[in-house]
Amino acid sequence: MSAWVLPDHIADVLPSEARHIEELRRGLLDTARCYGYELVMPPLLEHLESLLTGTGEALDLQTFKLVDQLSGRSMGLRADTTPQVARIDAHLLNRKGVTRLCYCGPVLHTRPDRPHATREPLQFGAEIYGHAGLEADLEALQLARECLRVAEVRDTTIDLADVRIVRRLLAGVAVDAPLLSRIHAALAAKDASELASLTRDFPTASREGLLALLQLYGDESVLAEADKTLKHIAGVSEVLSHLKWLASRLDGAVVTFDLADLRGYAYYSGTRFAIYGKGASDALVRGGRYDEVGAVFGRNRPAAGFSLDIKQLVSVVSPRALKAAIRAPWGEASDVNAAIAELRRQGETVVCVLPGHGSEVDEFHCDRELVQIAGQWVVQAV
Amino acid sequence: MSAWVLPDHIADVLPSEARHIEELRRGLLDTARCYGYELVMPPLLEHLESLLTGTGEALDLQTFKLVDQLSGRSMGLRADTTPQVARIDAHLLNRKGVTRLCYCGPVLHTRPDRPHATREPLQFGAEIYGHAGLEADLEALQLARECLRVAEVRDTTIDLADVRIVRRLLAGVAVDAPLLSRIHAALAAKDASELASLTRDFPTASREGLLALLQLYGDESVLAEADKTLKHIAGVSEVLSHLKWLASRLDGAVVTFDLADLRGYAYYSGTRFAIYGKGASDALVRGGRYDEVGAVFGRNRPAAGFSLDIKQLVSVVSPRALKAAIRAPWGEASDVNAAIAELRRQGETVVCVLPGHGSEVDEFHCDRELVQIAGQWVVQAV
Repeated sequence: MSAWVLPDHIADVLPSEARHIEELRRGLLDTARCYGYELVMPPLLEHLESLLTGTGEALDLQTFKLVDQLSGRSMGLRADTTPQVARIDAHLLNRKGVTRLCYCGPVLHTRPDRPHATREPLQFGAEIYGHAGLEADLEALQLARECLRVAEVRDTTIDLADVRIVRRLLAGVAVDAPLLSRIHAALAAKDASELASLTRDFPTASREGLLALLQLYGDESVLAEADKTLKHIAGVSEVLSHLKWLASRLDGAVVTFDLADLRGYAYYSGTRFAIYGKGASDALVRGGRYDEVGAVFGRNRPAAGFSLDIKQLVSVVSPRALKAAIRAPWGEASDVNAAIAELRRQGETVVCVLPGHGSEVDEFHCDRELVQIAGQWVVQAV
Repeated sequence: MSAWVLPDHIADVLPSEARHIEELRRGLLDTARCYGYELVMPPLLEHLESLLTGTGEALDLQTFKLVDQLSGRSMGLRADTTPQVARIDAHLLNRKGVTRLCYCGPVLHTRPDRPHATREPLQFGAEIYGHAGLEADLEALQLARECLRVAEVRDTTIDLADVRIVRRLLAGVAVDAPLLSRIHAALAAKDASELASLTRDFPTASREGLLALLQLYGDESVLAEADKTLKHIAGVSEVLSHLKWLASRLDGAVVTFDLADLRGYAYYSGTRFAIYGKGASDALVRGGRYDEVGAVFGRNRPAAGFSLDIKQLVSVVSPRALKAAIRAPWGEASDVNAAIAELRRQGETVVCVLPGHGSEVDEFHCDRELVQIAGQWVVQAV
């Protein structure tokens, strides 16, 4: 096999796409900064137990494991940044008030999430800690929308859900972890016969409620429907009112609901949202509330936030034209070098043609060149 | 052990340093773009043989190894980006003319390079392919200097060397790889007795030349001294003239020479430079010519370039003050939200005080606040 063949679902990013990713990266980080989110950079490698405790089996399977030569201990490559940021909030910053943090960096997955997904997403995300009220959920959702707007993603749809509905339907029912995981899978697949079989020994209210969830997706009428069907389940009406509150504050957005949707990381604890864009087969953004994610680090703070993969984002938005450059001769004279330096100070890209390469086609598109006219160096169109 | 303890030589980067690193990152990438260097993003993970072929034992020892669950093959986490960029130039872009590429991303090391070094440097670098002349070496050096200027590193010293001097001293001498590696180590440590012992069976000219190198460090007078001492060794005068040519074109720089210095990656093939800054115990930048690095990918193109670790850079420059923010009330009224959106559009950071958190100290330093006066929302000093 040739030395240059990359592993499956691993790819180089070449210049035009890399430039676009870099521009999106800056746009997203600047947007988060404008909302008061401070940048943090957690490491790629951590001890396994700090990466994985409390995050569920799916993340464990996605995580590459290594042995630390310095300590002999097991380390993991992060497959998700949210638990790391929760650790930073809980342990390192340890602030009393509201803390807003954002991050952007690669994560690695042992297997692709979807058939054509990369195993090295560039994860960007933002988290707000310390506020239990819905205002934090709303801020996360609004910032996520603003990020997609900055990235020029069009025709977005926001899908809302809440993991507490299933939790409340299962309250008081003895369900072990493998069964719970199969119930979640049946809900996600909208598999009524499997769900009926898994829940056949459950109390009638739980069982019928879970089966009813399979039909509870669509526009806002779903909330009224759910309230009617599930009103006898303690706490469900409150959750539905939360979803209604959020939806009513998303001006101009197309909002749908899917009360059986539990996909994503196991640490969600309340409202959840997914934002879809035209041309994307999967959600571009996933977020919501995950109050318990910092508990393993000794501090169970309210938390809400979202994350997205910039590599996925760049594949659904139109490429941006690279700013054209200026071609300049290579020279030793101070006047030409001063002219080149001044153009670069102004932000121009100036490509020096090295001796012997004058007849080559420019790789960096040059629409102007630096030429000497009457003793002066001037820029003119090619 | 607590879940939040990180592995040795692995650290979180907290907000003020993260912001500074992000600013440096942008400054360096923009500087490279102004010189016509196109951004590429090679993956963190590759098959081991493509990461390591031709790069030497040191890089192998520095590289974390993993097994790919999808293929069963061995993969490595990149410990250096240069061989990957050579692969992109050789195989993916496959251009005939001069190609300029830059990159910025994490690399991982199994062990720290230096006593207090991180095992997760943020490597930035630039490479120029396709030009064998010294103009490419000079451009790499000038771009590296400009990058340090942009990063506000003061009092830099440029140290020049050339691996061809040792190569020419050893031409025709049978030296196996382990012996060569010990000779390199003795040269780096300036260990005369070890070097004398290793070379005791060598031809006199080689042996005396190698021992003479141990004294050949210092200012430009070293070049004349070396020319006198080594003039009978074929090709050495030419190499010395190359170093002189380069040094003469570095206006205003403090330039030193160390002809025994062979430190760094094994793939260097010609001139080498290291740039030191005040307050840094090791070189901030290392670069030079490495014509053979792309050979394993089927294309032996001339190449020159450099790399640096932004995390090391940020530790030697003064921290930059974060732009202060504006505190704003959380509200549902459209007029306050419009005022907030407008400020953010102007690039301001606006931190909304969520209900119940009015008395908390701002984490994001706010020197102004958005207040309603006579029905208008206006920004005033706190």
